[in-house]
Amino acid sequence: MAIILGDDRYGKAENRIVRIVRDSPRHEIRDVNVSTALRGDFAAAHLEGDQGNVLPTDTQKQTAYAYAKLHGLTELEEYGLALARHFVDDVEPVASARIEIEEFAWDRVVADGAEHDHTWTRNGKEVRLASVTVAGSGEAQQTWVTGGFKDLVILKSTGSEFHGFLEDEYTVLEPTTDRIMATSLVATWRFGTTDVDWNAVYDGVKAVMVERFANVHSLALQQTLYAMGRAVLEAYPEIVEIRMSAPNKHHFLYDLGRFGIDNDNEVFHADDRPYGLIQATVTRDDAPDAGPAWDHYTGLV
Amino acid sequence: MAIILGDDRYGKAENRIVRIVRDSPRHEIRDVNVSTALRGDFAAAHLEGDQGNVLPTDTQKQTAYAYAKLHGLTELEEYGLALARHFVDDVEPVASARIEIEEFAWDRVVADGAEHDHTWTRNGKEVRLASVTVAGSGEAQQTWVTGGFKDLVILKSTGSEFHGFLEDEYTVLEPTTDRIMATSLVATWRFGTTDVDWNAVYDGVKAVMVERFANVHSLALQQTLYAMGRAVLEAYPEIVEIRMSAPNKHHFLYDLGRFGIDNDNEVFHADDRPYGLIQATVTRDDAPDAGPAWDHYTGLV
Amino acid sequence: MAIILGDDRYGKAENRIVRIVRDSPRHEIRDVNVSTALRGDFAAAHLEGDQGNVLPTDTQKQTAYAYAKLHGLTELEEYGLALARHFVDDVEPVASARIEIEEFAWDRVVADGAEHDHTWTRNGKEVRLASVTVAGSGEAQQTWVTGGFKDLVILKSTGSEFHGFLEDEYTVLEPTTDRIMATSLVATWRFGTTDVDWNAVYDGVKAVMVERFANVHSLALQQTLYAMGRAVLEAYPEIVEIRMSAPNKHHFLYDLGRFGIDNDNEVFHADDRPYGLIQATVTRDDAPDAGPAWDHYTGLV
Amino acid sequence: MAIILGDDRYGKAENRIVRIVRDSPRHEIRDVNVSTALRGDFAAAHLEGDQGNVLPTDTQKQTAYAYAKLHGLTELEEYGLALARHFVDDVEPVASARIEIEEFAWDRVVADGAEHDHTWTRNGKEVRLASVTVAGSGEAQQTWVTGGFKDLVILKSTGSEFHGFLEDEYTVLEPTTDRIMATSLVATWRFGTTDVDWNAVYDGVKAVMVERFANVHSLALQQTLYAMGRAVLEAYPEIVEIRMSAPNKHHFLYDLGRFGIDNDNEVFHADDRPYGLIQATVTRDDAPDAGPAWDHYTGLV
Repeated sequence: MAIILGDDRYGKAENRIVRIVRDSPRHEIRDVNVSTALRGDFAAAHLEGDQGNVLPTDTQKQTAYAYAKLHGLTELEEYGLALARHFVDDVEPVASARIEIEEFAWDRVVADGAEHDHTWTRNGKEVRLASVTVAGSGEAQQTWVTGGFKDLVILKSTGSEFHGFLEDEYTVLEPTTDRIMATSLVATWRFGTTDVDWNAVYDGVKAVMVERFANVHSLALQQTLYAMGRAVLEAYPEIVEIRMSAPNKHHFLYDLGRFGIDNDNEVFHADDRPYGLIQATVTRDDAPDAGPAWDHYTGLV
Repeated sequence: MAIILGDDRYGKAENRIVRIVRDSPRHEIRDVNVSTALRGDFAAAHLEGDQGNVLPTDTQKQTAYAYAKLHGLTELEEYGLALARHFVDDVEPVASARIEIEEFAWDRVVADGAEHDHTWTRNGKEVRLASVTVAGSGEAQQTWVTGGFKDLVILKSTGSEFHGFLEDEYTVLEPTTDRIMATSLVATWRFGTTDVDWNAVYDGVKAVMVERFANVHSLALQQTLYAMGRAVLEAYPEIVEIRMSAPNKHHFLYDLGRFGIDNDNEVFHADDRPYGLIQATVTRDDAPDAGPAWDHYTGLV
Repeated sequence: MAIILGDDRYGKAENRIVRIVRDSPRHEIRDVNVSTALRGDFAAAHLEGDQGNVLPTDTQKQTAYAYAKLHGLTELEEYGLALARHFVDDVEPVASARIEIEEFAWDRVVADGAEHDHTWTRNGKEVRLASVTVAGSGEAQQTWVTGGFKDLVILKSTGSEFHGFLEDEYTVLEPTTDRIMATSLVATWRFGTTDVDWNAVYDGVKAVMVERFANVHSLALQQTLYAMGRAVLEAYPEIVEIRMSAPNKHHFLYDLGRFGIDNDNEVFHADDRPYGLIQATVTRDDAPDAGPAWDHYTGLV
Repeated sequence: MAIILGDDRYGKAENRIVRIVRDSPRHEIRDVNVSTALRGDFAAAHLEGDQGNVLPTDTQKQTAYAYAKLHGLTELEEYGLALARHFVDDVEPVASARIEIEEFAWDRVVADGAEHDHTWTRNGKEVRLASVTVAGSGEAQQTWVTGGFKDLVILKSTGSEFHGFLEDEYTVLEPTTDRIMATSLVATWRFGTTDVDWNAVYDGVKAVMVERFANVHSLALQQTLYAMGRAVLEAYPEIVEIRMSAPNKHHFLYDLGRFGIDNDNEVFHADDRPYGLIQATVTRDDAPDAGPAWDHYTGLV
């Protein structure tokens, strides 16, 4: 009946690193938010305040910035792999490291009809996500990589129905055969390998999901999500599992009939709260064990 | 030495109206946040709690949604003008009305290589702003319209210097001839007329400002802002004044020399706070009086 | 018809300064967010990029931190006065300076029944506001000080009515004789003097406003606001004007009658948007000119 | 190698329920944010768009509001238990239900020296958290309850050291024997029983944790967290496990020596990002299996 230290980890969260590639007059930019977390032999810090095994979070920060130069940031996942392996391989008490990355995209400015060499505006669409977890040493070292995005706000103005649902004594919802369907999608997917064309797969997964959202005639958000997830797994054998969390952002048809005005699905109120929240996973039935792949450190990465 | 009621107004803020135009299979969407504010003979409500002159904020809300159908939302400013004139002309105690609008843009989805008829993703770039103020009746009625945007995040990775500044005993800043310059720009401009091609001017102003930010070799953010504002007034005679508020979003070159690593303007830390904040107005010297044009009701509109 | 530079200013926004007073074992804490803005002879920076008159925003930051030690932060307004006067008096091109301060309060922890010497939890109630503007030199120097708060969320569960209002063709609101009234109050007041017991007045104004909100039987939020403002001016001759901005945070009685359940003002839905927004000023009829007192630099200070 | 539906659930998130108890002139208020999530036999909705088993999220909302009246909200956990059991016991396809609750506290106003009957200001300190998960039916039904809070911002101005840490080639941090230690604590704890005096335990746990933060002389945030968690388990046998997530909110001593000004731990810069992030669990070694207790639906509850 003893009281004991359970799972613990620590690191530096939200290092806001901007990397400019300026090897030619046409610069490139990567703008990321990097968090690092270490697990290992840190019980003495908790039990006795002994920091002998604790690599400071400040050091983790310095390393994250240094690796942005040493290893570049062209591919988030390669950067994350290098950084995670460094902590596990080079810092003795570290048993496993997790690197979480958010990326904010920028669009190259067009000025006077031409793409500008060194100016961008921030693209406020979805935030790209990546996580890398490395555990163990030598031959036994294991690696898990996830990709994903959050805040992809997508809406269709027709092609969505909702009816035939279960009813009980608290059911007052009217069925509909034509509604707005909108969500702010979070999707994260797990790779079965690290031999991946990371940026191409990211763009491709997003395109597949958007296409399915648009073209599937929807009888429920659940159906749409499953179709999106299934299409991703069909298109990308590198991906073994995909998780989606989708708020049903309600757009209520505004009652203008009270004023003698027709409203044929034209004017809606976009409500804030509450919202439906649908979560679904689509997976291969032979997917390897997820291990710590989904063990989020900060937020949803 | 009496205590008196000073300026007052009231209204309904942040009506989240989504308008779908569905006259053909290719739908259109306008997604706006509308606030209405009325000034007039409302002293009795404050002094005695007498609501006889007070059109409820709920009624203002109903009217905002109704007008989204009756007058459409194709041009924000035309919608705002119709709504403001209704309150001033049709509701007896109302002396002036101000309508403030934020617009959230959506991008049509491309699926299977073709633009989709009824699906969009939210474009998270700048938020478009518009305000309309109408005061007085009949021949004496006056109208002020402003346009603008907020949250346009723009960055250049070179072409920006800062040196030759004033120094005092608290000055420790090092001069630089090459730095990142970035801001999250708020710009609002005042029209001298209501005979305007609203959407075209909006797109044009934004393009002019982005071009100047990119192409002006900058010795200070002040210089860049003035150039941006001046170019807008030169290009658009309809606009008589432009106001800009620009945080200097600091990107600090990260000190990697401590680790024997060169960092030739490649790796930066994007800091949150504090930030420089530059505000400037560019105006025509014969601009008509601004009246209540800049008298914000909610936020920066 | 020339295009000219209009009003401009610049400074460093949101310096997050924490000041510990540790002259005795019982420490004190002040936690503030300080912004500085300068106006003056800065046209050359805008027109030609010449920084010769520009005291860097970084220098303003250093000065703000230095003055937190040199002048303390016991009274926000005295700190602001010292800092503003420094910029105007000691930096030649500066014609006027504005200091805006937000203060985040902390509550001393009680541990084992006794107040702790050096531990606090952050009090998440209203944020205190102060602004100081100093313009001109020598005998002609003028000073304006405002106080205030934002985010004071206050609610009464009864004692609020709303009926007898103006009706038009878009009016569907039902009158009520008993409703929840709630707001997130912003109030800012202007002093007619700098000979003020700043902290005592702040506490007193807040107490007066809260008392009036609670005890005035309300026929409209307008009436309550006016009563609050009037009571402040009656109690504090140092204050010449008070401005209030009050969202009507709607709490809608939930319709449980559909399920055969009585709901006698017991269960409400707290809605997010839209909200009513009431703004009112109460002033002395002999209040001196406000000058730049209300010329906000960042947000609502 | 088939592609299959994995874990899924759905519900209504963030129902903003305010409950007034008005059985006597002295009213009481509970202000909560309730989310409901159901798991069960919902594969047909995903695979075929068949809603026959799907109780709409709108119905879940209606039920949440109805239960606020029928069962009250005096104790969050009892309300959550009633609601969760209703879904599992009364809605045939539901195999398990999770209810997550955030509570926003209000302080009764003191006006004219007396506590007011029906007016409160919102207490902006920590947000209380509760979750209830019920799975299975009849004798086999299982229940898990967690409590907790988020956003408890706590700071000590001395009594915190950090030195003796591991160093590598990226370590530049200076050791210190006196620093500010501050965090915005999230703590969630798991009960081993439902026979709990919920409100008393909540207040007690918070007091224990605050006391330990204040009185433990800290050699690292890890040590402080462990001491806090251990003290909770020692004081409350009902609790079998506690999880903590603590950002190390850095307060950097400001370098005023450059200006010839002493700064003996008096003036600090409160930095936003990055921050250290320490996560630790303290548990009984005979704690029962956590099952779905920590399977968050929305945020951290």
